[in-house]
Amino acid sequence: MRKAFEITVLGTSSATPTKYSHPSAHFVRLEGTYLLLDCGEGTQRQLARYGLRTLRISHVFITHLHGDHYFGLPGLISSMALFGRTEPLIVVGPAALEGIITSILKESDAHLPYLLKFIKTKTDAIHTLIENDKFAVVTVPLQHRMPCTGFLIKELGPERHLNVDACIKYGVPVDQYEAIKRGADCLSPQKGLIPNQHISLAGHPNRTLAYITDTVYDTRLVEILRNVNLLYHEATFLHELKERAAETFHTTALQAGQIAKAAGVKELLIGHFSARYNDTSLLLEEAQSVFANTQEAVEGRTYSVL
Amino acid sequence: MRKAFEITVLGTSSATPTKYSHPSAHFVRLEGTYLLLDCGEGTQRQLARYGLRTLRISHVFITHLHGDHYFGLPGLISSMALFGRTEPLIVVGPAALEGIITSILKESDAHLPYLLKFIKTKTDAIHTLIENDKFAVVTVPLQHRMPCTGFLIKELGPERHLNVDACIKYGVPVDQYEAIKRGADCLSPQKGLIPNQHISLAGHPNRTLAYITDTVYDTRLVEILRNVNLLYHEATFLHELKERAAETFHTTALQAGQIAKAAGVKELLIGHFSARYNDTSLLLEEAQSVFANTQEAVEGRTYSVL
Repeated sequence: MRKAFEITVLGTSSATPTKYSHPSAHFVRLEGTYLLLDCGEGTQRQLARYGLRTLRISHVFITHLHGDHYFGLPGLISSMALFGRTEPLIVVGPAALEGIITSILKESDAHLPYLLKFIKTKTDAIHTLIENDKFAVVTVPLQHRMPCTGFLIKELGPERHLNVDACIKYGVPVDQYEAIKRGADCLSPQKGLIPNQHISLAGHPNRTLAYITDTVYDTRLVEILRNVNLLYHEATFLHELKERAAETFHTTALQAGQIAKAAGVKELLIGHFSARYNDTSLLLEEAQSVFANTQEAVEGRTYSVL
Repeated sequence: MRKAFEITVLGTSSATPTKYSHPSAHFVRLEGTYLLLDCGEGTQRQLARYGLRTLRISHVFITHLHGDHYFGLPGLISSMALFGRTEPLIVVGPAALEGIITSILKESDAHLPYLLKFIKTKTDAIHTLIENDKFAVVTVPLQHRMPCTGFLIKELGPERHLNVDACIKYGVPVDQYEAIKRGADCLSPQKGLIPNQHISLAGHPNRTLAYITDTVYDTRLVEILRNVNLLYHEATFLHELKERAAETFHTTALQAGQIAKAAGVKELLIGHFSARYNDTSLLLEEAQSVFANTQEAVEGRTYSVL
C-alpha cells in the first residue's frame, strides 16, 4: 500500500476571515509525520473541529508575516503547552517571527514544557531547510509585498521494492536491502555487480507537494514546480481583477492554472480566496479553463497527493 | 424608552478554545456606544458570525495578557484597517500590550488608516480610566497569576426626566434643563430656590455592568460590586475542584454565586468555563444554588443590563 500523503485545508480566506471561512492553515500528513503550513487565526480550533492530531504536529511552516498566515500561532503554541506537549516543536518562518512569539510567551507567563525551536527562512534563493529519512522541505522565494517563501514538501525514502526471491537467489547481503530499495546496485563478493533492476521491483516514485502563497503571478516558479504532484497555489482574485492582483502581489485563478499547466504538475489546488467571492466556484471554473485537473480548497476537506 | 445596555457573549471557554466554544470576548452595546471586553482568538470571526458592528467598536478592554483574553486583538486591529476604519480605536490593557501589538503591526507592514491609542491599566487601586457624558469605565484590580484588572462599565447621564409643565409654570430657564435632569435644584431669579423634585420626574437610575475575570475567589470584591446590575463573573470550575481553582487563581461557580449574593447584585452571568465541562448546566445549577438570579454565558446570546 502506498504511504499516506495528504493535505487538509483549514482555511480558505485571504486577508480577513469571513462568517464562513478562516484564514490560511493547512494540515499535512505524510506517513506518520504531521506538518502545518501557515497558521492563521483560529487554526487550533479548526484542528479540533476536524479531529486532527494537534499534538502530533512536529513542524509549523509560516510563509510570511501578514496576520492571516500566522496570527493563530501564539494560541497554538500556548495550547500545546496546556495539553502537556513534551516533544519539540519546530517553527519555520521569517526571522522576525521568533522575537514576536518569544515576547508574547514571556508576557503571558507561559512556561513551555517542550522545546520550541525556530528556523529562519531565507529569501535569496531556494534552500533545503529540512531533510531527514522521510521528507525534505525546500523553501521557494516568492514575490509578495513583504519577504515570503513557499515550501516544497518532498517525500523521501525507498522508491523501489525488494525482489526478495531474486535477492535470495543472488545471495544479496541483508545489510544492502535498504540501499537497493533506494536504487543501488549490489556488489556481491561471490557474484560481482548485480544491477538494481535484477533484485528490485518498480515501486511508487516519491511525491512532492508544493505550497505557493502569497505571490504575484510569477513564471519563474514554473521550473521550480516542474512535475510537482500536488500544487497548492493561491488564487485570490478572478482574472477580471488582474490589475488589482498585480498591485497587491497576488495571483488570479486563471494565472494559477497557467502556472500549473506550464509546470506540468499532476494536480492543482487553489485557495486563499478574496472575501468578495461568496461563490468560489467561479474561481474554480476559471482555473479549470486553463488546467482541467484543478480542485478548489474547501475547509475540512482532505486532498491526497497522488 | 430605556436606553439599550446589553452584553453579547462571544466566547465562553477558558484557557483553550474547544470544538464548540471560543475564548473570552464580549461585545457591549450602551446606547450607540460599542465596547469589547477581552478579545480572545477568533473574536473578529465571532463578531461577523453574530452580525455585530465590528467597526463601531470604540474601545477594547483587555483584562490581562493570558492568550485566551487577547490573541484575537492583532487580527481585529488588522481587519479594521482592511475594512477602512478611520475612527480612532482605544485599547485599554496592561502596559506590555502596546509593545506587543506595535511590533506585530510593524512586522506585518500594516499601515493603519486610523489612530490606535493605548491606555495602560493600573493594578494598585481602583481607577476611573474613562469618563464621558455617556459612560465611565473603572478598573478593578483582581488577584490572578499575573497583573489583571476587571472593569466596571457605568452608565452615566441624566437619571430624571423633566417635568415640562412644572418647568414652564415656575419659569425655569432652558439652560438649566440638563442640570435638572441630573438632579440639580433650580435657582430662579423670580421664584428663588425650586427643589428638583418639583420640576422633575423619577426616571431610570444609571446602571452598572461589572466584568470580573480572571480572579481567585476574593471577598474584597464584594464592596466594589455592591448593587451592580449585571455581574459577569468567571466560574472556571465546579466547587469540587476548589483547590484547583485556588491554585490557578480561578473561581468556582459556587463562589461566583457567593460573591453575587454578598454584593447584592441584581443579576449574575457566569462564564469562562474549563474545557473539562461538556455540560455547563452543572456550573449554572451550582451558582444558582447560592444566587438564584444567575444566567450561564452562551455564545451568541445577548443579556440586557436591567
